[in-house]
Amino acid sequence: MVKVFHKISNSRWFSNLTVTIIILYAFILGFKTLEEAENQYGNLIFYIDYLVTIYFVIEISIRFFAYERKRDFFKSGWNIFDFVIVFITTVPIEQTDFAAIARVMRVFRVLRLITARPELKKIIDMLIKAIPSIVDIVLLMFIIFYIYAIIGSFIFADLKSGLFDNFLTAMLTLFRILTFEDWTDVMYEAMELHHLSWIYFISFVIITAFVLFNLFIAVIIDEMQNMNKKDDDEVSKLRNEIAELKSINEKILKELQK
Amino acid sequence: MVKVFHKISNSRWFSNLTVTIIILYAFILGFKTLEEAENQYGNLIFYIDYLVTIYFVIEISIRFFAYERKRDFFKSGWNIFDFVIVFITTVPIEQTDFAAIARVMRVFRVLRLITARPELKKIIDMLIKAIPSIVDIVLLMFIIFYIYAIIGSFIFADLKSGLFDNFLTAMLTLFRILTFEDWTDVMYEAMELHHLSWIYFISFVIITAFVLFNLFIAVIIDEMQNMNKKDDDEVSKLRNEIAELKSINEKILKELQK
Amino acid sequence: MVKVFHKISNSRWFSNLTVTIIILYAFILGFKTLEEAENQYGNLIFYIDYLVTIYFVIEISIRFFAYERKRDFFKSGWNIFDFVIVFITTVPIEQTDFAAIARVMRVFRVLRLITARPELKKIIDMLIKAIPSIVDIVLLMFIIFYIYAIIGSFIFADLKSGLFDNFLTAMLTLFRILTFEDWTDVMYEAMELHHLSWIYFISFVIITAFVLFNLFIAVIIDEMQNMNKKDDDEVSKLRNEIAELKSINEKILKELQK
Amino acid sequence: MVKVFHKISNSRWFSNLTVTIIILYAFILGFKTLEEAENQYGNLIFYIDYLVTIYFVIEISIRFFAYERKRDFFKSGWNIFDFVIVFITTVPIEQTDFAAIARVMRVFRVLRLITARPELKKIIDMLIKAIPSIVDIVLLMFIIFYIYAIIGSFIFADLKSGLFDNFLTAMLTLFRILTFEDWTDVMYEAMELHHLSWIYFISFVIITAFVLFNLFIAVIIDEMQNMNKKDDDEVSKLRNEIAELKSINEKILKELQK
Repeated sequence: MVKVFHKISNSRWFSNLTVTIIILYAFILGFKTLEEAENQYGNLIFYIDYLVTIYFVIEISIRFFAYERKRDFFKSGWNIFDFVIVFITTVPIEQTDFAAIARVMRVFRVLRLITARPELKKIIDMLIKAIPSIVDIVLLMFIIFYIYAIIGSFIFADLKSGLFDNFLTAMLTLFRILTFEDWTDVMYEAMELHHLSWIYFISFVIITAFVLFNLFIAVIIDEMQNMNKKDDDEVSKLRNEIAELKSINEKILKELQK
Repeated sequence: MVKVFHKISNSRWFSNLTVTIIILYAFILGFKTLEEAENQYGNLIFYIDYLVTIYFVIEISIRFFAYERKRDFFKSGWNIFDFVIVFITTVPIEQTDFAAIARVMRVFRVLRLITARPELKKIIDMLIKAIPSIVDIVLLMFIIFYIYAIIGSFIFADLKSGLFDNFLTAMLTLFRILTFEDWTDVMYEAMELHHLSWIYFISFVIITAFVLFNLFIAVIIDEMQNMNKKDDDEVSKLRNEIAELKSINEKILKELQK
Repeated sequence: MVKVFHKISNSRWFSNLTVTIIILYAFILGFKTLEEAENQYGNLIFYIDYLVTIYFVIEISIRFFAYERKRDFFKSGWNIFDFVIVFITTVPIEQTDFAAIARVMRVFRVLRLITARPELKKIIDMLIKAIPSIVDIVLLMFIIFYIYAIIGSFIFADLKSGLFDNFLTAMLTLFRILTFEDWTDVMYEAMELHHLSWIYFISFVIITAFVLFNLFIAVIIDEMQNMNKKDDDEVSKLRNEIAELKSINEKILKELQK
Repeated sequence: MVKVFHKISNSRWFSNLTVTIIILYAFILGFKTLEEAENQYGNLIFYIDYLVTIYFVIEISIRFFAYERKRDFFKSGWNIFDFVIVFITTVPIEQTDFAAIARVMRVFRVLRLITARPELKKIIDMLIKAIPSIVDIVLLMFIIFYIYAIIGSFIFADLKSGLFDNFLTAMLTLFRILTFEDWTDVMYEAMELHHLSWIYFISFVIITAFVLFNLFIAVIIDEMQNMNKKDDDEVSKLRNEIAELKSINEKILKELQK
């Protein structure tokens, strides 16, 4: 029995079925909001919701019973993730005061796409692994933002648009400038206050662009060096074998010269 | 006879002639719209259109008769593509009610540039091959967009600009934010409603930028790993040959020590 | 004498002096416009202009006389480039009717920075070499732009902003959308005309982004393959040498087994 | 004693403590501005400031006394950097006329994050090393900007928005166009003056994009060639060893054929 469940839970059609159901369900949920159709199609959506809930419970059960030792199921982070999503969205609080929140909660069912498709799991794992490598980038950007924000909220405090009114607003404004979003509007306004304000903005744009560009290059080069390390291992193995060959040859030569 | 057609259809001057004719024709068609010149030059354009149609029929005939077995012509997807374009734009519906649509249809003649130039065919093939590799990226972006769209249309439903009125509009607004297009305008409006709305927008911008950046790196690294695989094959061949060499040497040593 | 000129024209300080003079001169010329200082400092600028003209004539003479055979000077494209710039900006039409144009012409003296600095020459050579590789990219983008422009000027002809009035304007509008510059303004306006216009704009943005992204990757991969080809040559040389080694060893073995 | 200080100053917890204190302090300083809380929490902030100052003095003392020969401390640029920051922000000018400036100066304490975290030091070193490699890029961009700025301030001098009024403004406007920030607004305004102005703007956008794109590729390729050089060294070592092997084998063959 466990074997049957195991076979089902690892089969491609099972994961594809789940993906299809989630996407269809997501579109229906989106469509519901779109067409304000809750009144007319309210019942239909209620039943679809019901069916999807049942499918989710069945799907997770199959995967649960596919485990030889049941507690192993909870050893995988992704399984716990699925379990929590299914559990939360199954609780029947639809008719209670929390109905609106419950409806929003159902949105997170779309997250099950990640666990239903192994390729997506890999991408997410890769993204999570990439987080520590950006800690220092974030720190460096924080330093630059921080210095510019404090100086900005000191010099441009009197700006009418209030874009440098306080530290948080200044940080937001700098982030906006980083994305090049209407950054000249801010600059032109600041230049009316102080004629040389362009130095502040241009230097910020150039410094952050330079930092981000170099860190981008650094990430690519870093990844390539990891790849090359493997190649270097291969080459050093070659060298070892050639060295061995040489020692054999020298033995031969000695043997002959005897 | 087939050989002559074959030689012509594979010659560089033939493809260059076709490219030149298509580009000239495209500019004349564009110029016609530009200068509203249809009235004065109507006849001229009519004749040019006629000539291009004839050239296209001749060109495809030459390529058709260049095939030893005629049905092989339709085995290439690009040939069918050409045939359909030539056929559709040849049908004389210019004088009928569908004249306007027919005129627009002629635009697709510019697509024949792709088949006329082998380098472009290669690029298109490369682009088509790249599509499956982005399925999971699209899925991941869909998940992020979906969650933000539903949450957005829940929290920002009362926005005056109506940018989060329904699911589709919210998706459009999020796509707009992804391209950094006036995204702060939306944020500032939302911040008037809820003071902490910036968390929604900044998190969306940072998450999508992080995801896209990492997927971009992943594509480059992936391509390089494919290239390295070939190198690794070369190195393993080297190792095999050195191993063979070693066995010969050991035989020599044994022979000597006898 | 030729040797002395040759030594000077190849020395680092000579090129650095020229670079410094050109940059200083460029800033003075820019400053002149900036401060509307022509009236007060008119004489000063006149003399500086005079001095720079003389320096340029001397500099090019030194480089000319550094050639053993004088006509070799004109064999280098960069020398002709310099000669033309010096010649044009030396002609004394300052007092004639063409004074304004002459003043603008002097701007091109800044182009001499390229020839004065060998590193810049290399970059320019690299850029020129890169042009043919983008011919097909340009053609492909032309096809996409062309089709969207014609369809756009057909569907959105009645747009109040007139952004799709004719073929050229439509091309400009599409280029603007490519740079993400206020592209949603156009889309929102078009959506008032036809409700589904967003398909036109979103598809254009995604297709062009996809094409450019893939061509970007293709350029990097292409460059790397060129680099790897050299590595492959090295490895194939290694294989040849190992093959030779093997044949020697086989001879040894035969010799012994005799 | 020196050994104890040395151990402390190199320990991970010491650097982490410093990083935590600086970030906390930075947020408190930012929060102070944000909430206009100086009046209520004035005393609290005064004491925190006091404590941080003391911590900084202690921290730098530990690192100073960790050196066997004290003057070696000042041989590291980073130590001098730290010393200057601690010294400047310690001077008690809080109550004097320069209070406002002193408060802004304290902002630079956040720069100590760089020295407190070795990874950040490495990134900064990398960024500084990258500066000379962009000298020529800057020169080339300067040439392009310069020529466009002079031509622009000549043709578009009468623009109502005054975006090409003088050389500096024209440079700013071109930088804005480079970032694609509302660049079409400038173009549309210029096109009302001269119908063909779009050539100026489109050519500027395409040329700068082409230059920056190619220089970006060049940086990646350059870094990779440096990496490959090491690989090539490895391969040439392999070849040397195989050549040696060959000479031994040839000796063996001769020995046998005697």
